[in-house]
Amino acid sequence: MTEKAFQDYYPDQWSHCFGCGRLNKHGYRIKSYWDGEETIAHFHPKPYHTAIPGYVYGGLLASLIDCHATGTAAAAAYRSENRPMDSLPAIRFLTGSLNIKYLKPTPLGETIVLRGKIREVKKRKVIVDVIVSVKGVETVTGEVIAIQVPEHLQFQTEKLD
Amino acid sequence: MTEKAFQDYYPDQWSHCFGCGRLNKHGYRIKSYWDGEETIAHFHPKPYHTAIPGYVYGGLLASLIDCHATGTAAAAAYRSENRPMDSLPAIRFLTGSLNIKYLKPTPLGETIVLRGKIREVKKRKVIVDVIVSVKGVETVTGEVIAIQVPEHLQFQTEKLD
Repeated sequence: MTEKAFQDYYPDQWSHCFGCGRLNKHGYRIKSYWDGEETIAHFHPKPYHTAIPGYVYGGLLASLIDCHATGTAAAAAYRSENRPMDSLPAIRFLTGSLNIKYLKPTPLGETIVLRGKIREVKKRKVIVDVIVSVKGVETVTGEVIAIQVPEHLQFQTEKLD
Repeated sequence: MTEKAFQDYYPDQWSHCFGCGRLNKHGYRIKSYWDGEETIAHFHPKPYHTAIPGYVYGGLLASLIDCHATGTAAAAAYRSENRPMDSLPAIRFLTGSLNIKYLKPTPLGETIVLRGKIREVKKRKVIVDVIVSVKGVETVTGEVIAIQVPEHLQFQTEKLD
């Protein structure tokens, strides 16, 4: 793992995301890191992040997959250009599509592990597969098509929180 | 629209969901209703439910689609059995898969409208298509395969919040 998470390299104007923005004090603030050729993130859900009692809310899992994948996409794009994540121009991805399969209920109360695998890297599009597990048991899989933020969306900086 | 939302008919032990549980004081508490043959829900996001500034967080939209669809699935199942939602045995669905396409960014600050269309109703499986729109503009589509809660998951009632 590197010391600084992918999301910590996002410029301020892209750091308000409810899932992964370090400047969103209400959000999940997930942190993703390289782990060899794959990427990894850990999340500790609150007791109220539940679906039916005892199990993690599926919408939270979708959110974590989403942000871990877009973070992974950004990291993969920098790597494909052979430059560090603090170099300019900054790269940020949004989600084009999110396909989630809930294989079994995810037990609540343990650390959720998200593992990202980069399937394809193109100039403005990266495809990432994410596996969610708890205590080594895979419970959910996700496929994310991430699209680089188009330029006309890059300069809105209104106050958010 | 009916007076009482689908989610208000869920028995207490299934009403803790972060997305739609009336007993989860931290959650979104979304409310879904019949609107003719379709179903409808409205949601008013907070300013911090953002992705990049000015637009709604995709993970929230996935969560809303998820819970509107499982609520729709329950309502469709009761209707297919020709019985009201307050009759027993209670029916509750979980998400088997969630496929979301983000067609364009969803502007933040307006009411989000979710419209559900029931594609297929089987004994334990219902497929629902959901369209998300803001001010009449469709921004996101979702397809949810909802699976009826299996019996071995129905009786966990630990305290959640």
